[in-house]
Amino acid sequence: MARSLGELAAQFGCELVGDPQVSVESVATLSNAGTSQLSFFANPGYRDQLQVTRAAAVLVREEDAEECPVAVLVSDDPYLAYARIAAELHPPPAVIPGVHDAASIDAGANVDQSAQISANVSIDASSSVGAGVFIGPGVVIGPKCHVGSHSQIMANATLVENVVLGERCIVHPNAVIGSDGFGNVQSQGEWVKVPQIGGVRIGNDVEIGANTTIDRGSIDNTIVGDGVRLDNLIQIAHNVVIGAHSAIAAQAGIAGSTIIGERCMFAGQSGVVGHIRICDDVIVGGATVITKNIDEPGFYAGSIPGEKVRDWKRKVARFRRMDDLVKRVSELEERAKKDLSDDNGS
Amino acid sequence: MARSLGELAAQFGCELVGDPQVSVESVATLSNAGTSQLSFFANPGYRDQLQVTRAAAVLVREEDAEECPVAVLVSDDPYLAYARIAAELHPPPAVIPGVHDAASIDAGANVDQSAQISANVSIDASSSVGAGVFIGPGVVIGPKCHVGSHSQIMANATLVENVVLGERCIVHPNAVIGSDGFGNVQSQGEWVKVPQIGGVRIGNDVEIGANTTIDRGSIDNTIVGDGVRLDNLIQIAHNVVIGAHSAIAAQAGIAGSTIIGERCMFAGQSGVVGHIRICDDVIVGGATVITKNIDEPGFYAGSIPGEKVRDWKRKVARFRRMDDLVKRVSELEERAKKDLSDDNGS
Amino acid sequence: MARSLGELAAQFGCELVGDPQVSVESVATLSNAGTSQLSFFANPGYRDQLQVTRAAAVLVREEDAEECPVAVLVSDDPYLAYARIAAELHPPPAVIPGVHDAASIDAGANVDQSAQISANVSIDASSSVGAGVFIGPGVVIGPKCHVGSHSQIMANATLVENVVLGERCIVHPNAVIGSDGFGNVQSQGEWVKVPQIGGVRIGNDVEIGANTTIDRGSIDNTIVGDGVRLDNLIQIAHNVVIGAHSAIAAQAGIAGSTIIGERCMFAGQSGVVGHIRICDDVIVGGATVITKNIDEPGFYAGSIPGEKVRDWKRKVARFRRMDDLVKRVSELEERAKKDLSDDNGS
Repeated sequence: MARSLGELAAQFGCELVGDPQVSVESVATLSNAGTSQLSFFANPGYRDQLQVTRAAAVLVREEDAEECPVAVLVSDDPYLAYARIAAELHPPPAVIPGVHDAASIDAGANVDQSAQISANVSIDASSSVGAGVFIGPGVVIGPKCHVGSHSQIMANATLVENVVLGERCIVHPNAVIGSDGFGNVQSQGEWVKVPQIGGVRIGNDVEIGANTTIDRGSIDNTIVGDGVRLDNLIQIAHNVVIGAHSAIAAQAGIAGSTIIGERCMFAGQSGVVGHIRICDDVIVGGATVITKNIDEPGFYAGSIPGEKVRDWKRKVARFRRMDDLVKRVSELEERAKKDLSDDNGS
Repeated sequence: MARSLGELAAQFGCELVGDPQVSVESVATLSNAGTSQLSFFANPGYRDQLQVTRAAAVLVREEDAEECPVAVLVSDDPYLAYARIAAELHPPPAVIPGVHDAASIDAGANVDQSAQISANVSIDASSSVGAGVFIGPGVVIGPKCHVGSHSQIMANATLVENVVLGERCIVHPNAVIGSDGFGNVQSQGEWVKVPQIGGVRIGNDVEIGANTTIDRGSIDNTIVGDGVRLDNLIQIAHNVVIGAHSAIAAQAGIAGSTIIGERCMFAGQSGVVGHIRICDDVIVGGATVITKNIDEPGFYAGSIPGEKVRDWKRKVARFRRMDDLVKRVSELEERAKKDLSDDNGS
Repeated sequence: MARSLGELAAQFGCELVGDPQVSVESVATLSNAGTSQLSFFANPGYRDQLQVTRAAAVLVREEDAEECPVAVLVSDDPYLAYARIAAELHPPPAVIPGVHDAASIDAGANVDQSAQISANVSIDASSSVGAGVFIGPGVVIGPKCHVGSHSQIMANATLVENVVLGERCIVHPNAVIGSDGFGNVQSQGEWVKVPQIGGVRIGNDVEIGANTTIDRGSIDNTIVGDGVRLDNLIQIAHNVVIGAHSAIAAQAGIAGSTIIGERCMFAGQSGVVGHIRICDDVIVGGATVITKNIDEPGFYAGSIPGEKVRDWKRKVARFRRMDDLVKRVSELEERAKKDLSDDNGS
């Protein structure tokens, strides 16, 4: 979908320095872009590449424009402008209304005529699919689910039961939404299952990564707010609430009944224990474990970077013997106190 | 499935304080329960909600009964009683015997007539499915597998090969049981695959979470004991043995050939290295790494909770300079010893 | 597939001490092997079992041969020889050319006649499958993908879009290759999706574990080199490059745009931040977090093993009060300096 630089500048509010008639067909990195491609410069680490790029044009901040050897589209936030223009040049494939012959839609299921249902899809009689929805091959939609209009459920994902998904959501392959939470109670050394009867409520414009799992609530619902972004292989346990516009990176886990505020960010492999509350605008670093309520916005961390194994082992040994070190310091203090009293008494 | 309070009291051995004719239809939380719903009070943090609940009745311990404004069912373990009554009021959907038209069952597969086989299921000729089993849409059952009676395999799960599952098990969506273990041996800088020819043996009453993986044994079998509970996104490597009634929370991993005792509990994101042995009745905290045999029952931990990044960074810097601190203390000790000998010598 | 010891010795370059006419049918562990089975002895921990094995023959190093009560095949690397002989005795099932009736292959898809396509497979019109390929039940192959000859894609795995897989690869069940990377940019407190338009390029002889996710590149490709081994539940983010013959264990994660060298090894639950570079021949320990470039081959670690919770809590408390300890040591030093100047001044 080729667009002229003049059109892009007008549509996306950038100032163009260059020929408005030149057109671009696609986006590319600074180093790989050819003469019909648009690139962007946002990370100073790539300044060398900016200076020799052969792109048709580059999205840049005003202060970087002079260093660019080709046409520029000036933007306060070149990466944001890039995201929007890339979506224009590379739109997702159009939804083609219809149901594949090899789909199994139970009589009674309410599937909008404008939705696309792929091969080997299974939809329960008690569920519904909105307008313009894309359902990929192998997707399973169990009982009492609804997929909001213009959402996309990618291949082999499963909505288990009682899952209501908002509009314009994307669920990536093999994600599982609405399976039983981990509810067990002990009785004489054995586990008795606690029935999980709640559902999952997901807002609009939510993206859920591949192989991510979101459990249904134990009694009430697990809730994911509008605009939330979840990466791959994340665990969202039963009864969790995730506030709007929060983002969670891959392999993070949120344990049961925890409430996460709005606009929070969790880096990869971080974890949050159950039954706590994280306020709005909290950022949690990679591999960090959060065990208590957080009431104050800000950046929280808790992992120690790895290093050469010999150095690390010595540090761990020191850590293990810290009791001993504290004792030695206390003895020195005792002695110093005694010296002092000796001095005073002398 | 409405039940009267009188019936429930008799069936589940609770003492009823209230009208035995009142009936309840479903369970609910203390704060959301209406007049045809049963709730429970087990966590003291919800005492405020107990005092104003509008439930038909509440399961409580004897000592809390007076605070409840509505009928009570008195139980020594209200949460356990809740689990059992909730299962009575909210039974899983009945298994409807039969094979969906869109299922692909190889000739030779032995599927009990009372089992329910959903759409897009694939079952190998050499496998069998017991009485009253539910197989969800998209499930794949490879060669030499058996699903014990009254088990449920949920959507898109895969039993790869040589997997024998006990009775009354639940396998949640997209779980993978019996895929190859990670067996590789180096030869001149490249990896040679070690064939994985063992299977997986899973006991009765086992529950396996969504997107969890259990590898087949390299030669003998990977074994999961009766009554084990596995949450989502867990890795169980080849040759692992998990003792009966152990429970493992989400995103934990057990490396190859490790043997876990009975009634153990592993919190989320914990990890156990390969080739070790954990005795019965061990509890491992969240994000804890276990690297050695554990021979003594008890609670083991190993993660440091996160905190504000500035505070954390200072601690990490101190940790990194602990060598220096130890050296400074040693110098002070040397000096103190010298002072002492000077004193003695004076 | 029975083979005589004489044949195996000749084919795999081992020295046989025993009757060359004896034949073996399968492999087994030292303790379980019967008289038609071959075993191996590589781990000194199993010496007791070697001494009483009833195997037909055992693969051993020369120095261990005398301790073996049965025939031996002597090898410099018994485990490597075992891997190769096991592959001979237990070959993977033969690929049976043909397309299952319940597969959905779009017109235009280019599927080699020698490939086996199982039930409920979906292949996009713009994709191709090479000679001798096995595609398991429920696999989805989206647009612009290619599966190289003699590769195996196991049940319910998904190649999303623009994924090129080399020859002789194995993709285990429910793995997802080529789904969108986690690209988001903030605008006024909300997330704007950055279109992910790159692909994934996977070399020859690569193995990818169950439920592992490999994201497509944001603009260029995510790349996995020849001979790489990925275990289960691993996250490989967009634009990552993994050098040839590297191996990554379960639940590890590599964040976006990071470049991993050749022959690296990452233990389970380890993590690497984005936008860094790890040189060749680096080994990273379990649960270790790498946050900076590594330029020097070697072994890197960063996790502290768990221990009894009371001991651990005391250590964590010491760690938290290290500021205080440093201050106390500084005060002692100040005092010692003052004593010294007093002494000198006296």
